[in-house]
Amino acid sequence: MKVVFVGSGNLATHLATALHEKGICISQVYSRTTSNAKMLAEKLQTTYTDDPDQIVQDADIYFYALKDDALAEFLKKVNLPDAIHVHTSGSVSISIFRELTYNYGVFYPVQTFTKDKLVDFSTTPICIEAANSLVEEELIQLAELLTNKIYNINSEQRKVIHLAAVFACNFSNYMYDASAEILNDAGLNFEILKPLISETADKIRTLTPYNAQTGPAVRFDKNIMDKQIAILKPYPALKKIYKLISKNIYLRHLKK
Amino acid sequence: MKVVFVGSGNLATHLATALHEKGICISQVYSRTTSNAKMLAEKLQTTYTDDPDQIVQDADIYFYALKDDALAEFLKKVNLPDAIHVHTSGSVSISIFRELTYNYGVFYPVQTFTKDKLVDFSTTPICIEAANSLVEEELIQLAELLTNKIYNINSEQRKVIHLAAVFACNFSNYMYDASAEILNDAGLNFEILKPLISETADKIRTLTPYNAQTGPAVRFDKNIMDKQIAILKPYPALKKIYKLISKNIYLRHLKK
Repeated sequence: MKVVFVGSGNLATHLATALHEKGICISQVYSRTTSNAKMLAEKLQTTYTDDPDQIVQDADIYFYALKDDALAEFLKKVNLPDAIHVHTSGSVSISIFRELTYNYGVFYPVQTFTKDKLVDFSTTPICIEAANSLVEEELIQLAELLTNKIYNINSEQRKVIHLAAVFACNFSNYMYDASAEILNDAGLNFEILKPLISETADKIRTLTPYNAQTGPAVRFDKNIMDKQIAILKPYPALKKIYKLISKNIYLRHLKK
Repeated sequence: MKVVFVGSGNLATHLATALHEKGICISQVYSRTTSNAKMLAEKLQTTYTDDPDQIVQDADIYFYALKDDALAEFLKKVNLPDAIHVHTSGSVSISIFRELTYNYGVFYPVQTFTKDKLVDFSTTPICIEAANSLVEEELIQLAELLTNKIYNINSEQRKVIHLAAVFACNFSNYMYDASAEILNDAGLNFEILKPLISETADKIRTLTPYNAQTGPAVRFDKNIMDKQIAILKPYPALKKIYKLISKNIYLRHLKK
């Protein structure tokens, strides 16, 4: 089976590398940024192009791992060869391919991909959506090379999962970042919070996040909250976030 | 060495249990809530009281693990016996003991303590502050029974650490909770996000949170953000949080 990757960002890099390591032949990498295409192609010991017209036409599966806007733009410019075409986006509907080809689908790993950080695909859920059972079988076979957490998820559900992932991953990471900023400015080392961050993430493996909630806001300890808001005086943005999230934690736990 | 615990909440329960397991004699538990005092005392095979006047006077160390307001109130009501007195609060200054006794300090574990979830103290940092070197030595010895991550931290620094911990732990847990709420309402299982949450927490062991940031906001993918804000229509509070945090992620990464 020959696979072409359109895109060379973090998701493309990690997914293509993982498939390559499982013996899948990545026959070409396309990126409009030549240096990125080249870098990923070298990693995969394959060829690359930065010209949409030079994309090989004989692959079995074309993976599109582009930003949503870029994917829509790209699909306007090319004629899709007769093959399976899949995108990897949480927020783009499967129907983006509908007018362009017959065999298409979505292959969405629910994971965060960062430069310089290996990802364990064996624990990564992969959400599959397919235009027909032929595509579904192919995508499940590919996914099974990487993980046993395979979900059939339609486009509406996938958008919800992607939104939830923004909260659970991007926004929680921003909370780490805010804490690191506060500590660094006070000459303190972020290292001291790492065990707490691990434990916070670990807790929700056995408790619901609702039951795992601790801190001054959930017990409405106004004394501590007022003191902490005072410390945040030099950080107007974080102060606003502190007040808004504290209020919401309190209200959420008041309700039940 | 005989230790009395004043308080029977999550921190008191986990810390007293951990010290008990290391062979420290917890000679009494006090709580104004009789049933809580009794429950913890049974766990520690010791005695309890709900009457401040019945607290034993012959212990070597008194641990105060109370809410900040309750600690201030409690200390007004009692005469402290000649012993070491320490509180476990991130946000209360060591000076709360200054007028009351000579040997006092702070023993603050940087951790989140929840009912029904064991905590690994060996990885938990403990922040020590002491009125004098005698107290410091005693507290370090106690802390060393539990962990090798012992930090000398003064009251101002501790308040900053506690504030940072609210962001890193309480607020990131709220983000998990928000994601669980969104998924549950759509009939989807929170299970699908657990590997992502683990990886997000794992990333910051080797990357700074700043460099670990991913998602639509950091790359200012307005297309996705607008779509996600639209999905959040039934969640006005989460919509407000989404907009505020996304804006701040974007601005933070624009700055550098």
